[in-house]
Amino acid sequence: MKQSKLFGKTIYEVPKDEVSKNAQLLIRGGFVDKLMAGVYYYLPLGKRVLSKIENIVREEMNAIGGQEILMSALQKKEDWQTTGRWDIDVMMKVQTNLDKEFGLGWTHEEAVTPLAKKYVRSYKDFPFSLYQIQTKFRNEKRAKSGILRGREFVMKDLYSFHTSEESLDEFYLQAKDAYSKVFKRVGLGDKTYFTYASGGDFSKYSHEFQTLTDAGEDNIHICDKCGIAINEEVVEELDGKCPECGSSDLHVEKAVEVGNIFKLKNRFTDPFNFKFLDSDGKEKTVMMGCYGIGPSRLMGTVVEILSDEKGVVWPKEIAPYQIHLVSLGNSDEVKNKAEEIYNDLQQQKVEVLFDDRGESAGVKLKDSDLIGIPLRVVVSAKTLGQDGVEIKKRSEEGFEIIKLGDLQHYLKNFI
Amino acid sequence: MKQSKLFGKTIYEVPKDEVSKNAQLLIRGGFVDKLMAGVYYYLPLGKRVLSKIENIVREEMNAIGGQEILMSALQKKEDWQTTGRWDIDVMMKVQTNLDKEFGLGWTHEEAVTPLAKKYVRSYKDFPFSLYQIQTKFRNEKRAKSGILRGREFVMKDLYSFHTSEESLDEFYLQAKDAYSKVFKRVGLGDKTYFTYASGGDFSKYSHEFQTLTDAGEDNIHICDKCGIAINEEVVEELDGKCPECGSSDLHVEKAVEVGNIFKLKNRFTDPFNFKFLDSDGKEKTVMMGCYGIGPSRLMGTVVEILSDEKGVVWPKEIAPYQIHLVSLGNSDEVKNKAEEIYNDLQQQKVEVLFDDRGESAGVKLKDSDLIGIPLRVVVSAKTLGQDGVEIKKRSEEGFEIIKLGDLQHYLKNFI
Repeated sequence: MKQSKLFGKTIYEVPKDEVSKNAQLLIRGGFVDKLMAGVYYYLPLGKRVLSKIENIVREEMNAIGGQEILMSALQKKEDWQTTGRWDIDVMMKVQTNLDKEFGLGWTHEEAVTPLAKKYVRSYKDFPFSLYQIQTKFRNEKRAKSGILRGREFVMKDLYSFHTSEESLDEFYLQAKDAYSKVFKRVGLGDKTYFTYASGGDFSKYSHEFQTLTDAGEDNIHICDKCGIAINEEVVEELDGKCPECGSSDLHVEKAVEVGNIFKLKNRFTDPFNFKFLDSDGKEKTVMMGCYGIGPSRLMGTVVEILSDEKGVVWPKEIAPYQIHLVSLGNSDEVKNKAEEIYNDLQQQKVEVLFDDRGESAGVKLKDSDLIGIPLRVVVSAKTLGQDGVEIKKRSEEGFEIIKLGDLQHYLKNFI
Repeated sequence: MKQSKLFGKTIYEVPKDEVSKNAQLLIRGGFVDKLMAGVYYYLPLGKRVLSKIENIVREEMNAIGGQEILMSALQKKEDWQTTGRWDIDVMMKVQTNLDKEFGLGWTHEEAVTPLAKKYVRSYKDFPFSLYQIQTKFRNEKRAKSGILRGREFVMKDLYSFHTSEESLDEFYLQAKDAYSKVFKRVGLGDKTYFTYASGGDFSKYSHEFQTLTDAGEDNIHICDKCGIAINEEVVEELDGKCPECGSSDLHVEKAVEVGNIFKLKNRFTDPFNFKFLDSDGKEKTVMMGCYGIGPSRLMGTVVEILSDEKGVVWPKEIAPYQIHLVSLGNSDEVKNKAEEIYNDLQQQKVEVLFDDRGESAGVKLKDSDLIGIPLRVVVSAKTLGQDGVEIKKRSEEGFEIIKLGDLQHYLKNFI
């Protein structure tokens, strides 16, 4: 992509109405635009990052046998009355030209449970799991955290169905591992903790994945011995002891919840009377689990953590482009060589953003840091004088000159 | 994918509440499930088809320089009041916990125009085009056409911005060609007509792509001489003559609108006061075009047209899987050989649905026709007796025995 044609502009002033780092940097880098508090547009650069995160999540859900579906945002009042959740105030209500009121889904247990019931009856069809990657809506009292907490946001919600608690437990562990893989792949592996949290009134505990950041709204107590964490809300209940190793050596950190997994058991299958016919001919209750990750929140969390004073530092797997090719100076020699390298990379299907604009070196290098593509390749009269290009990793300070003849080999190894 | 694990079931009875062929076949084949009139869930098979259509559309929009973004479903009342469209009754209205009413987008001119204005000012930045593939909402008076006309549906909407009508005209032709490619790739090329339609009060004509089907709600008059069409609404205005060749030899057909392209000119840029600074230092009005295709409607149209009394006949490019491998009989020999072929195909990344269920031959073959995957490969004691498998194309009557040793080569050529 030629940057001269790219929609979206870098902005140097910090947006006045944004207090969160992720929104500030994403707006300044031309990744997102704010429509109103909690509602953001994804511009071309941001959409690329979001899609990459969605694909990582999709791959890991498919790997544990999750089947992708797409349910509707519009929700039937009756279904939510069945579980007693129609009047929870996070649900936005829709007026239509039908004689009925609808909700907009902020989660989909009330949709997926009757759906599954419609198609599955025999024990032979269990276990199975369904997921979707879909836009959700939520009345947020305050929406000041950029894309960490939106009124409209992208969510991956997976639901699993089982004939026994053992089967649910087994899948729950698989989902836990799949989630760890997702957080590792998007670059948050080191800072993300498996965390005990409240299980509501039908499960002892649920589990969250919490990523350390000052932008987080949760306090988690990390076990210094075994490395798991406890959400503050259940510390007392656990007598201040790690539920895994029993240690009391915990320290508190601020964190943001980037995923959660929950043994729902019969919380939703009972109200919908979703039973299966077991091998002994008896009807029994279906056990259920739910597993959520918000790709848009994940994107915001990456920005909170993987950034410096100059801008975002995207990890390779989710960077909008792998290579930022920057030409400095307006000589024909520089322009032609940069264009040649760009065309070569395009032909090799390398994801490259080419800053072909007529801006000054200062502006172009500043923009490059702000956008945060992993590898910068600078072509200038100076580098061509050495028959080379200047290579700099966004995550490192140093740079080096690579001979033009070695460039292809270098980039191949990098990507 | 093993069919024994696939979520969704084939149904033999025609759903009583569905009058449209696309909904009947899609529900019977386990592609979609109906939540309520005009609102459908996409089950795993249906989601695969929908995603493939979306990707075709995405590729063709990228090919003409369209940049993918993602705007919000939530719409600001003020923006729609600016253009006088807030009170159009197709818009669903949302009650939130904010002191404001929001709309749900059924189109996005009122979103994209202020967005573009925010980022673009100089003539140098034109032309450009932005698109999204997104869920839209619409109050439909009647929603009886299955996924052809939904209250919630998937839409690709592209918007282009120009400094002159000439530039708009040029891009318009590119978009027209891109649309033709989309309809060809999804299998509707032969039956889809470029059609003159009403241009509202700011453009003489707009153009639609209309696909011939009795399920359509439009009447189009096809020119027997040059092969374009005229929507009935503008036949009189055109004196019953083809606007391209002047011929009066027209015949009427029923059709469904599968795409539309529209020169909006200054219809939206004026109310939002979106001007650009030209090279002569003067402010001038931005010209705009919009271009819509509904992937979910396209899917429904394919089903209306590419189906027979047994079920859907998916074209290769959008089929949920390329190969339907079906084992008949329960001997170990058959089971093992089918499993072996399945594993081979999986390793080669061939998209294969494997009917490994213990159902009768009658049920399995009937289901296979209903699901409509392009190529069926049957493994049975009979075929193995001839050291082969039976191959049948869904779109053709005949079948043939292919030797096991030749299967890989055969499938490679087919896919």
